[in-house]
Formats: sequence, structure tokens, C-alpha cells
Amino acid sequence: MVTVEFEPVGRRVEVEPGRTVLQAARDVLSLDAGGVNAPCGGKGLCGRCRVRLVQGELSPPGELERRMLGPRELADGYRLACQALILGPVKVEIPPETLAGRQSLQVAGTAEEIALEPVIKRYHIPLQATTVDFPFSTWQQVEVYLRQNYGMEDISIDSVLFSQVETLAGNDHLTVSLRGREIINAFWTAGSRKPLGLAVDLGTTKMAGFLLDLETGSTLAADGILNPQIAYGEDVMSRLAYALEGAEQYSRITRVLVEGLDRLLQTLCSQAGARPEDVEEAVIVGNTAMHHLLLGLPVGQLARSPYVPALTLPLEVKARQLGLGMAGGAVVYLVPAVAGFVGGDHVAMILSSRIQEAPGVTLGLDIGTNTEIVLARSGEMISCSCASGPAFEGAHIQQGMRAIDGAVSKVSVTSGGREVHCETIGGKAPVGICGSGILDAVAGLYRAGVISASGRLDTGHPRVRWSSDRKTAEYVLVPAGENGAGRDIVVTQKDISEIQLAKAAIAAGIQVLLAQTGLQYTDIDRVVVAGAFGTHLQLESAIAIGMLPHLPLQRYQQVGNAAGAGARMILLSAAERRRAVEIARNIKYIELAARAEFNSIYLSQIRFPG
Amino acid sequence: MVTVEFEPVGRRVEVEPGRTVLQAARDVLSLDAGGVNAPCGGKGLCGRCRVRLVQGELSPPGELERRMLGPRELADGYRLACQALILGPVKVEIPPETLAGRQSLQVAGTAEEIALEPVIKRYHIPLQATTVDFPFSTWQQVEVYLRQNYGMEDISIDSVLFSQVETLAGNDHLTVSLRGREIINAFWTAGSRKPLGLAVDLGTTKMAGFLLDLETGSTLAADGILNPQIAYGEDVMSRLAYALEGAEQYSRITRVLVEGLDRLLQTLCSQAGARPEDVEEAVIVGNTAMHHLLLGLPVGQLARSPYVPALTLPLEVKARQLGLGMAGGAVVYLVPAVAGFVGGDHVAMILSSRIQEAPGVTLGLDIGTNTEIVLARSGEMISCSCASGPAFEGAHIQQGMRAIDGAVSKVSVTSGGREVHCETIGGKAPVGICGSGILDAVAGLYRAGVISASGRLDTGHPRVRWSSDRKTAEYVLVPAGENGAGRDIVVTQKDISEIQLAKAAIAAGIQVLLAQTGLQYTDIDRVVVAGAFGTHLQLESAIAIGMLPHLPLQRYQQVGNAAGAGARMILLSAAERRRAVEIARNIKYIELAARAEFNSIYLSQIRFPG
Repeated sequence: MVTVEFEPVGRRVEVEPGRTVLQAARDVLSLDAGGVNAPCGGKGLCGRCRVRLVQGELSPPGELERRMLGPRELADGYRLACQALILGPVKVEIPPETLAGRQSLQVAGTAEEIALEPVIKRYHIPLQATTVDFPFSTWQQVEVYLRQNYGMEDISIDSVLFSQVETLAGNDHLTVSLRGREIINAFWTAGSRKPLGLAVDLGTTKMAGFLLDLETGSTLAADGILNPQIAYGEDVMSRLAYALEGAEQYSRITRVLVEGLDRLLQTLCSQAGARPEDVEEAVIVGNTAMHHLLLGLPVGQLARSPYVPALTLPLEVKARQLGLGMAGGAVVYLVPAVAGFVGGDHVAMILSSRIQEAPGVTLGLDIGTNTEIVLARSGEMISCSCASGPAFEGAHIQQGMRAIDGAVSKVSVTSGGREVHCETIGGKAPVGICGSGILDAVAGLYRAGVISASGRLDTGHPRVRWSSDRKTAEYVLVPAGENGAGRDIVVTQKDISEIQLAKAAIAAGIQVLLAQTGLQYTDIDRVVVAGAFGTHLQLESAIAIGMLPHLPLQRYQQVGNAAGAGARMILLSAAERRRAVEIARNIKYIELAARAEFNSIYLSQIRFPG
Repeated sequence: MVTVEFEPVGRRVEVEPGRTVLQAARDVLSLDAGGVNAPCGGKGLCGRCRVRLVQGELSPPGELERRMLGPRELADGYRLACQALILGPVKVEIPPETLAGRQSLQVAGTAEEIALEPVIKRYHIPLQATTVDFPFSTWQQVEVYLRQNYGMEDISIDSVLFSQVETLAGNDHLTVSLRGREIINAFWTAGSRKPLGLAVDLGTTKMAGFLLDLETGSTLAADGILNPQIAYGEDVMSRLAYALEGAEQYSRITRVLVEGLDRLLQTLCSQAGARPEDVEEAVIVGNTAMHHLLLGLPVGQLARSPYVPALTLPLEVKARQLGLGMAGGAVVYLVPAVAGFVGGDHVAMILSSRIQEAPGVTLGLDIGTNTEIVLARSGEMISCSCASGPAFEGAHIQQGMRAIDGAVSKVSVTSGGREVHCETIGGKAPVGICGSGILDAVAGLYRAGVISASGRLDTGHPRVRWSSDRKTAEYVLVPAGENGAGRDIVVTQKDISEIQLAKAAIAAGIQVLLAQTGLQYTDIDRVVVAGAFGTHLQLESAIAIGMLPHLPLQRYQQVGNAAGAGARMILLSAAERRRAVEIARNIKYIELAARAEFNSIYLSQIRFPG
């Protein structure tokens, strides 16, 4: 038995001498590390199982290999795995293109496996010096190599690279990155530099970014920063209004967004010890307004009824055209929007939750200031967006705050509302209430009878008092002595109303979608709840106040940042990219505001369930 | 009988009622105006014979048409020509896409017909106003229309057009121009604006430009201007040297070139009463140096042996990226070069002369400061470039001048050199000698015995005298009294040497190509002589001095600006474009300087033939 080592996957296996490299690879690589590509089944017909001998001895190349590979590749150590016989201990490199299409991986935040099928592929091109006897420039050698070895008849070169290469001539290898048939990056130092990708979930408040290794699919860094456009308004409408003031204002607010993205990219790269110029592809998902403001698309029609996007095609824009400092010819891919308030983030959420493919009936929600809801039955999808307001992000709540250290995030109300137990983020002394905390508090108080079905606080309850200005009743959640806020943390009558309005919007959206499809809520087989708030809320509380349907908890699935997970899938796989476009096209959008019955449904949902 | 009028071709025909529109079209359109597309033979299967009823009555659309066309097209008057029956007098519009692929035309300067297959196609999209009940933006309507009516699943939009359309919303039609699947132009005023194209033969001295109607293939204007880069040197090498002085110099010399092209475009448009923003595609052929200087490609390797181009791929660059004021998303297509001194103009010359397709052996020459020569045998081509110098353009000749009014262009020498008859361009009094004139004069004097086989003037001849500085012998071609120069027009010994060097370079190039293929000059079936000088020279003279092979004159063909004709063909036809790329790849390039035998062949060709 001899040892065969496979690079760069780092696997080794003991085999009998005389077996082929492909057989050895199948022994060890078939399950998790991705197999060796051999569509012809190992008959030497397709030439796809190209591997490179790094160390040791294989059988000499036969006629078949000489024909399939050509002298330059053979000289370089390339072999067909199905033909080369193992004669002794060897180390064999499996180039990415030989692995491609087989590797699958799991993206954090989703339970699904995807096939790694990056849109960027790298090729290492051997070069000769240009002489009178070999009068070919670097690009000519690249062109001929790709044509002769990979049958690429129609490659093109991003014009930023035109002049880059000759000035660096004199090396014996050039590494080029191809995106489809376009060369989008080229450099001389082979090996150590990996092709990287950036995935961004571009929200109104926050931008979440992920730096990925495009060859392995692994996430090298993940981080989030505030959207710096916040200086121009907290909500989408005020950003649009600012952009509509004039061309200068519009270009300023776009620049701010790009600077934010660039900062996010820099941060991720420095965390991963990587260089922005190695980032060769980006995928951005975001709500429709962010998408339009980033691209400088017209937004007038987005700011007034019927709130239509300027365009809903998938877009590819050169990163340098946006002003992002990535690889020379890198492209930013923007996932298409569906409607004015249903953006590419919703598409990405549906993608990563596999809602389109699911059998039966699935309800998907991404809860935020706008809550996007999709109802899917066997691949048919209808979506709507409802203005649920910022209460669940802690805004418009008297002592509300974001979900950071010291925020009350979990509340249990016992003894008819006389006893309260609070948990805070980070276990710190409570200083305010975040979205999941206020939801728990309202649900607990309702169940304890402190709040009526119509939402009124029982002013006769021992923990309910009038506010100091006597304008509103309030429930003392955490007395001043037990918290770090320096004053009582209370839940006011107005806070309860905010939660009622928010939950009514979501519940009404769900009801309209159900009515549209003729379904009952009991028909729903699975409820996917996405987003930061959706992941941290207590489902029992959301059900108790009637925000989410009264279904067994095991039908619920809280999936975290599913839009971000979708963005990463789209970055890693051309198949997922095609699927996202298909999802965006398949969604039937329902404009709630245009429906006569919406207002009465909405009003009927303001009460808590009986 | 009723009258059927076809728009926009402007043909009418009388037919019996009850015939189909397709039958009527075939009666009148088959020969010269292009037919109606009907690949299925008129069975209603392919949907390609879509026409639009402008006026009058056709049979109501049947089931087949309703299925092929869809409600929006039907409402718009679209019909299938093979299905719609003529009931009374009608006016029918044949959209360009229904004509495309069938029209063929002859491009001036070539005997060949080409199939019109423009890379740009226009579509007229009916639009509805965006309302709550029809919440779709303009681009969304375009996207859906192209998908539903033409099956286009993956269109994209040039980003310069993103914001252009919404701001103009409110019209009932939008015209879009597609290049492949990319929308590169969009505007509201349909009908009157035609898609135009620009073809340029970009020479070191002159830029020849042609403005074409892309729908009919007709040339709307043709003009030439001097290449303004001349201020930076007359020849290619001095331009390259200037560009190599530094980045600032390089960008200046590029800018000058672009400004020249822009001026040429403006001139052509104003001659044709057209607008540059309707020019949606340009094709540029040129020598390799002009090609590189226009694009800002590295030129260091082009200025030193072995003189290799930076790249030889066909390139597509957005016109706005170059700085050319054409349609928003217009593309400039650059025909690939073959080698440092064999450019896209050579490829275009071969294309328009159909040298690749010709049976037998063809020799093609484009004579200029550098003369490119191709020898083709049944599709196999080898080319070389020889430094023939500027003598044939009137430079380096004592009384040489360009081929303009007053230039001696034809000379016949009789009575043993004692009688001379000269013709001038424009019939004006002679003021100097142009290329064809000096060639005639030298050939005539050689045949008359005034010049020996080695090129010496017979100083005993009555019209031969010593120059005033007694340094050189000279032959008096036109005495001062008979011309407009104010002094004798002479042919000097040095002039004769210049012609000898030039013709030796060309003859040696031909000889090397013949030797390379093992052919004799008598094997040559056809000689194509291109270029301004090549078109005006007297073949007998060129043969007499040994510049061109001694073959029967009927084997010769003088084809004018064949490079410009090729550029126009490539502009009008995607098929010709593919053919040009194939030609560029198929040419085997021979570097004369690198061949040991070249110098001795060259020296042996300096003598005149025995």
C-alpha cells in the first residue's frame, strides 16, 4: 500500500499501487470534500479530471493524455486522474476547476447545502519571454493558452487590464481570473492569493457584510456596520426625499452609501488578513430603496404611489463604476427587486430558506420597519409588504432601545402581573427595553389580565400608575432601584398601542395573503421567521398577541439573517443566482394599500385575540 | 385587384383579395428590397414573419396568430404575414427584424454581396401609464414585453440608460435598441430616427469614415480627414516614440486621435443630416499602432523588435469610454490585429476581397508606407509586412506631392525618352509628381533605355542633365515653361533609387511568401491590389519595374479602399464580423526581418528586371 495525498483539500488515503488517481480520489473525497470531476465516467474522453502531480511518481502519460492535455500542460505536471496510475507515494493537486460543481457546503444561517459553482475561475498560464523566435505578447499567450487548453474561443479582457500586464512582463506565469469569458483580474504572484468575494445585506439601518473564499466557500470574516446614510434620515422615505431634492443631494447620499460599503469591505479584509484587490465579485441584496440609491436609479416613482421600482432586472455593475475598491475588473451583482417595498433581500431570504422548493404551504416573514411576507404553496409565491413600524427595533417605545447590552430582551409576567422576571442582553443591569422584550412584556401583561383585549392597561392594578405628567397610564416593569437606568423602566399605554399597530399590520398582511390563496392559517405547514428581531423574539409571545398564527411551535423556524445567507449563496453559486432571478420573477406581488378590504382587516387585528 | 403598400421599403403591389400578406410581399420584395422572413415556409410555425397593419383591413386574427403574438401585439396591429389575408387595400409595415438576415447588399469598393445582419436591433415597446392598478415602471414593461414577445430571458441595460427613461415617462411608446441582449439606446420619438453606424479606416496619415444606415445598409456619407496625430510625427514610429515619452504624452496623443474621430463623425453626420446620438455602433480598422494608441494599450513592445502587439483579440469598448460622442450605450468594435505591422486594416482588406474564400492562389497587397501582403491558397493565408517607404505617397521624391490637383499622375515616355506625355489630376497645370506618376516615369524611362537595369540615368541622354549643385543627374520631365511649378519638374537619380528600394521591398516580400509555400509566381491566379495608390497605379508600370509579378493583366484586380469596405461589411453583418475574427486567427504571420534569406532577396530585387 502507498500513500496518496490530495492538495489543497488536505486528504490522504492508502491505496494499492496500480490504481488510478481517480479511483484513489473517489475513496477519500466522495463524501464531504467534493469529488473529482469525471463526467465521462473515467474513460479519458472528457478531459475534465485534470490533476497536477506535485511529488512522487505516476505512470508515464499515454497517447490519450498527450492528446487531451498538450505538451505545455504535461510539462507542467498536469495529468488525467482517470488515466494516471499510482506507482508509489504521491502528492496530487486537484485544481479548483476539477473540483467545481461537486463541492457543496453549508452557509451559516441556513440548513441547506449548496453546490459550489463560483462565477469566477482562475487559470495559471505558463509564459515564455517574447523574442524574435517567439514573437507573442503576454495577452496573446493567454489567449492562445485558454483557447487551446480550454476551448475558449471568445474571451475578452476588461479594459482596465489592457495595459497592466505588459508592464509586468518577464515572469514565467500569469494568473488570470475569468468571469464567464471575461478576464477580470490578472497578476503575477500565483498560489498564495485566493479569489475572494463579498456578500452584503444592505439594510436601511445596518449593512451586514461577509468576506468569502470563492474556492472553498468558507466565510473568512463577517461584520456589520451602521448604514452611514442614517445621517440623512432613519427611514427609507426621508432618504428618498433627500435624494429627490436635487442631483447634488442624490449624488451625495449615494456617495455616503458607497463609502460605507467600502469601509465594510476594508474592515472585513483587515479582519481576515486579506486585500480588497483580491475581492473579485460582490453580491448585494437590499431593500429596493437602498438598491436604487446605490445605483443612482430614478427614485421619484419609488417615493409616491404606486411605489414602483425603476427596474427589476438583475444588474451587474463594475465595482469601479460604483466606486468600490475591489479587483480591477470585479463585478457587483445586484439581486433583483420585486416591488417598491419588496426588495432583493426578500428574494434572498426566500432563496436561503428554500421556500420556493418546499412542498405544502410555507409562510415566510422578515420582520422589520417594513415586514415582507411571502406565502408559498408548492412553488407558487405571493408576497406583500406591511408598514409594521420601528417598534420592534426599540424605536417609538418610551424606554425602547436597540438589542444591545442592558436591553431587557425577555420578560415573564407571573402572579397576575404582580411579579415580573426580566432577562437582559449580556446579563447587565437593565437600562431599557428592546423589541423582543417589549413584545414579551405586552404578551405577558395581556395573558395576566393587566391589559384588556382592546389593549387598555388596568389602571387599578398595583403596578400600573399614571405617568408623572398624568397623560398616560404605565406599568412599572423594573423599578428604578433594580435597574441601571436611574429611573423606573415602564411600559406605557402608548407603547402598547405601538405594538398593537405593528402586530396588526403583520397579522393583516398574513390574512390578506391567505384570503388571496383561499387558504386557512391552519393549512400552513411551516413558518419561517427571519431577521434579527425575528430570530430573538419569543414565538409564544408573538402568537399570544395575535401577531403570528396560532400554530404548533414545531411548525416555526427562526432562521436569523436569511437575506445575508442568501447573498452568500448567490455569491458562491451561479445556480443559486439563476434560482434567485427565477424567484424574483415568480413572486406575485400584492399591494396592500390598493386593496379595498385591507383597512377593515387591519383595524380588526388591532385587538388582541380572545 | 387591391393595392398593398409595404412600409418602410416603399413598395406597392396589386393582388387578388384573399391572398396572404406573405404572398403579396414575395411578389414584390423578393429581389432587391429584401424579403419577409419566413423560415417555416409560411406555415405559421415560426412566428418570424411578424408585420404590422398600418391602414386597411385584413382577415381577423385566427387561433394560431393569437397564440404566436399575444394580446398586446395584436392590439398593436401586429400580424403574421403568412396567416393574414388581404381583404381590401392595405398598408403594411415590415419591421426591421422581419427583414433582417435576408437583405443583401453590395458595399462600394467590393464586388461581393453581404447578408445584412446588423448587431443592433430596434424594438418599439407599447407602454401604459404607471397606476395603482398597473404598478409597473417603464423598464419593467420593457423587460416583460421583450420576454413575452421575443422570448428574451436575460436582457440587460447599459447603466447610462438607467435614469434616462423614468424622467421621460408618460409616452405611449418607447423605442429601444438592443445589441445582443443589452439595451444600448432608448428614446421616445419613434419612426423618424434610424439606427446609424460608423465605419472607419484609421490610417497613420488619413482617417476614412463612412456613415451607414444600419437597417438598409446604405452609405449615407463618406469622407476622409487627415489624422491629426500627424503633428506628432509622420510615421508610426515617431508617434510610438512620443507616446513612450510618458503617460502625459501618451494620453495627449490618444486624445488627439479621439478628437479627430469625433470630428470625422460630426462631419459625416452633418453631411447626412443625421445626429451623432443616433450612431449606435462603430467599427474601426486600422494598423496595429493606431489601434493601440487609440485604446491606450502598452506600446513599448510594439516599438522594438520583435514588434509584437499587446493583444490581438477583437475588442469591444463603449464609445463613451473612448470619449466618442455617439449613442448612450454605443459600442466601438475594433477588428483584431495580426502582428505589429499587420493590423485590422489588413484583415478587413482580406475580408472584403474574399481572399480567404477564393479557390486557387491569391496574392493581396495594400501598398503604403508599409505594404501588407497576403498569399492565400484555398483559405490558407500567410502575410508579411514590408517597409516600402513613403515614396509612393509622394514623399522623399524631390518634386513629389500627394495625389491632389496638379499632380502628374500618368506619364508616357516615347521616342527613346525624348518625348514625354503627362496627365495631371484635375487636368491642372503640373506642379509636382504623385506616386503613380513617378512609378510611370521610372518605368517609362527604363523601357526607353534612359535608365539602366541597375537604375543609373544615362547622363548622355538629351533630357538628362546634372542638377544645379552638380550632385545628382536628373531627367527633365516637364520643363518650367510647360508647368505651373515655376521651375523644371525633374526625376532625379535619387528619386529612382527611392523607387528601387520601395519596389524591391514589395517584390522581396512576395518572393519570401512564395518560397514559404513552395509556389511560383506563375501559380498566382489573382492579384488584389488595394489602397489609394494601388488603385491608381498603372499595372503595366508596376510590372515593368518588377514590383508586381509579370502576370496577364486580367489576373489583376484594383479594389480601392478595401479596408474601408471591409469595415463597412463588419459594421453591417455579424457574420462578416465572425469571419474577420476567423481571418485574423488563420493568418500565419511571417516576420521578414527575422529571416536570414530576406536581405539577399531584397538586394537582388533592387535591379530592374532583365
